[in-house]
Amino acid sequence: MTTVGVFAFDDVEALDLCGPFEVFATARPAGEHDDNARLFDVLVIGDEQRTVKCRGGLLLTPNSTIDNHEPLDILVLPGGPGARRERHNQRVISWIRAQNEKTQILASVCTGVVFLAEAGLLPNRRATTHWRWMDWMRAEYPGVTFISGKRYIDQGHIVTSAGVSAGMDMSLHLIDRLHGAAVASWTARRMEYSWSGVPL
Amino acid sequence: MTTVGVFAFDDVEALDLCGPFEVFATARPAGEHDDNARLFDVLVIGDEQRTVKCRGGLLLTPNSTIDNHEPLDILVLPGGPGARRERHNQRVISWIRAQNEKTQILASVCTGVVFLAEAGLLPNRRATTHWRWMDWMRAEYPGVTFISGKRYIDQGHIVTSAGVSAGMDMSLHLIDRLHGAAVASWTARRMEYSWSGVPL
Repeated sequence: MTTVGVFAFDDVEALDLCGPFEVFATARPAGEHDDNARLFDVLVIGDEQRTVKCRGGLLLTPNSTIDNHEPLDILVLPGGPGARRERHNQRVISWIRAQNEKTQILASVCTGVVFLAEAGLLPNRRATTHWRWMDWMRAEYPGVTFISGKRYIDQGHIVTSAGVSAGMDMSLHLIDRLHGAAVASWTARRMEYSWSGVPL
Repeated sequence: MTTVGVFAFDDVEALDLCGPFEVFATARPAGEHDDNARLFDVLVIGDEQRTVKCRGGLLLTPNSTIDNHEPLDILVLPGGPGARRERHNQRVISWIRAQNEKTQILASVCTGVVFLAEAGLLPNRRATTHWRWMDWMRAEYPGVTFISGKRYIDQGHIVTSAGVSAGMDMSLHLIDRLHGAAVASWTARRMEYSWSGVPL
């Protein structure tokens, strides 16, 4: 079993978090529906144990906190208005740096790329983000090469995606990378999600 | 302002609920990003005021209950394993029948169509659902004509969608219907969601 953590904070974009959650929670071997055959356990992780209010008012309760979660194989960092505030939370940035040493994959969705940038994990790397924030990111993090027009950019340990729903394409791509195209396509079919599967 | 309620219950499919939530919460007049310009208030509604556990373990806290929510213009009924249990909850079915008299649109996602069927709102109507449950639905509700191969079926007051992510296409279609194609396309662009916009 692979364990995926998705970071949650106030004013996170709901689908930045729930999209990857759904994709990883839905992944099964091709042809399989049973929950017991799931390939990933997915945890929502808050900085503290309290309810988080997503942009728009969706209320989420984290499964764990950054201080007590089980070891992660993959950490997903969503974006949203709250990401531009939380990037200055040094407890969070220290945790992300520690996870960088422990996880197989660190992935950002949308403006969640600010967490990777603040943690110093992107200098001289290519990254992507939501189209609306592309110029802002380039000005804020001149050491990072921000690329437009890609759903996601996979650099091995670090993977970044474009805005909101692109996090689902990135998650399906990671399933493809870890378990093959048949499993990724089956997962997309279980979600009735139109996924091109074209590698970028 | 249009108020959208999304019903939440244990073992709801996370994206059945969070997908429409995100679409309606993201809708703005074309060219507009400001949260104050939002076109919909979206509420998660539980049958009681307690935390709900989605399939896969995502924990949601309802904003209101079926006994105390503000008047709704649109009610979205998601599916998931829990829908096949909750369809036998007569308090819930009575509430849906009452909402049928009050709302402009009653919409189901995925297997959430069982709520409309149990409330007696579908006889002799066409409906759709998740591909995996199509034959089961036809056997369970022989008075309803279940149609395969459509993302959603709009019958005016009653709208049903196919599985999971099709709820986002249905929600974008409803924004198109209520506010026009430019607003629906802008909403999809804000989410970076690939939406054909082709009416079905």
